[in-house]
Amino acid sequence: MTRRIRVIGIGAGHPDQVTIEAVRALRSVDFFVTADKPRKDGADDPLLAAREALLARHLDVVPPVIAVRDPERDRSPDDYDQAVVDWHDARAAAYEQVLLEHEGDVGFLVWGDPAFFDSTIRIVEKVLARRKVEAEWDVIPGISSLQMLAARHRIVLHDIGQPILVTTGRRLHEAKESGADNILVMLNSTIDLEGFETWDIWWGANLGTADERLVSGPVVEVAVDVLTARIDVKTKVGWIMDVYLLRQRS
Amino acid sequence: MTRRIRVIGIGAGHPDQVTIEAVRALRSVDFFVTADKPRKDGADDPLLAAREALLARHLDVVPPVIAVRDPERDRSPDDYDQAVVDWHDARAAAYEQVLLEHEGDVGFLVWGDPAFFDSTIRIVEKVLARRKVEAEWDVIPGISSLQMLAARHRIVLHDIGQPILVTTGRRLHEAKESGADNILVMLNSTIDLEGFETWDIWWGANLGTADERLVSGPVVEVAVDVLTARIDVKTKVGWIMDVYLLRQRS
Repeated sequence: MTRRIRVIGIGAGHPDQVTIEAVRALRSVDFFVTADKPRKDGADDPLLAAREALLARHLDVVPPVIAVRDPERDRSPDDYDQAVVDWHDARAAAYEQVLLEHEGDVGFLVWGDPAFFDSTIRIVEKVLARRKVEAEWDVIPGISSLQMLAARHRIVLHDIGQPILVTTGRRLHEAKESGADNILVMLNSTIDLEGFETWDIWWGANLGTADERLVSGPVVEVAVDVLTARIDVKTKVGWIMDVYLLRQRS
Repeated sequence: MTRRIRVIGIGAGHPDQVTIEAVRALRSVDFFVTADKPRKDGADDPLLAAREALLARHLDVVPPVIAVRDPERDRSPDDYDQAVVDWHDARAAAYEQVLLEHEGDVGFLVWGDPAFFDSTIRIVEKVLARRKVEAEWDVIPGISSLQMLAARHRIVLHDIGQPILVTTGRRLHEAKESGADNILVMLNSTIDLEGFETWDIWWGANLGTADERLVSGPVVEVAVDVLTARIDVKTKVGWIMDVYLLRQRS
């Protein structure tokens, strides 16, 4: 019988924000694989405790969780896209090794939804393309941080009938220049709101966790609050995952 | 004690695609309110059976479900945005009436996620702004059909580090003209792929249900399959909800 690889979206952070389908998937596998993202100071992956709580909440017996150490990544490459591709190749080799060393069905745990700014699906495709590992595979959607942002602020992510541009912090200004007036931004190392003085912002960090933070209002009024909250969360919690919506005031 | 209004995302169609948080919310209220969308031929809302199955699956005793008949909507107005606003006002009045006639906490059931192309949040805001109904309110996110599309096709919704433009069928060509090359399209009465000959498509209909359909490939090769499948689903199932991703081939 062919083994199964299941890519499981486990939501934005709160253990109750997984679907029943995801819980069933968690219970169906023999072991889990997850990306180990150690902090720069060498401490454990700060999301480790959250993941453990989530698994303990839904599984009577938690099967082994194999953390694959992410290969080093060039953070300021000349060619960003190629650097990401190289990094994905190195990760595929690391995951392949784990799958060759362990038998049975495996669940890849993905925070949020595997469909948005996550590399797991591409890694599984690469592992299978190398043809050393044979498996069937499926994907279980999860609640993304962008949905949590909307829920916590109790907003729809667009004006009536209008589009949403979902992009990354590094492409934010490019998005504005292209004419987008409703921009949802994920993956921020810094936040630069220069040029957005006539826009409104809805910002959230560590959504779904006990350390959740929300700020909203006109950019000119609350930009400082956002930056202050970012520093505050990083200091107190040790990590930050934030997402925000920017909308041109009409 | 203030009553509660809970806007609950119940996913794309499958009863297991609700979160545990949503199930708890379903169990916490005294009655449900939902939009009754009768078919043009006068038959019942085709999603009624799916909703009943979902509630029966998660609740030992299902509280009353009050279907609010949608007011008539001008489908070919001179001013689309104003027509939607008028329609929301009429709906707010209808929902307010139901909340004045029934006591207790209420759950508004929303297919997919309340954050994307859904009017429930705006209606609740309007109802509360009229100040006849007093309530606390919250929003529980749900799996959207766009996430189901990604999961079923086992894709990430964008190329590495690239943006996603989420829009409606009627604004698709406008999105392309603005330079977007990765467009996720919801709410389609028709699908017009003219001009997308060098693009790929990932399409899905009635995702999460027993009648789910998927088509993917180069637009030039599969456009006919999409259109055929749309007619086929409409004929066999009686209703269609479809969503698709278009990406310019690189």
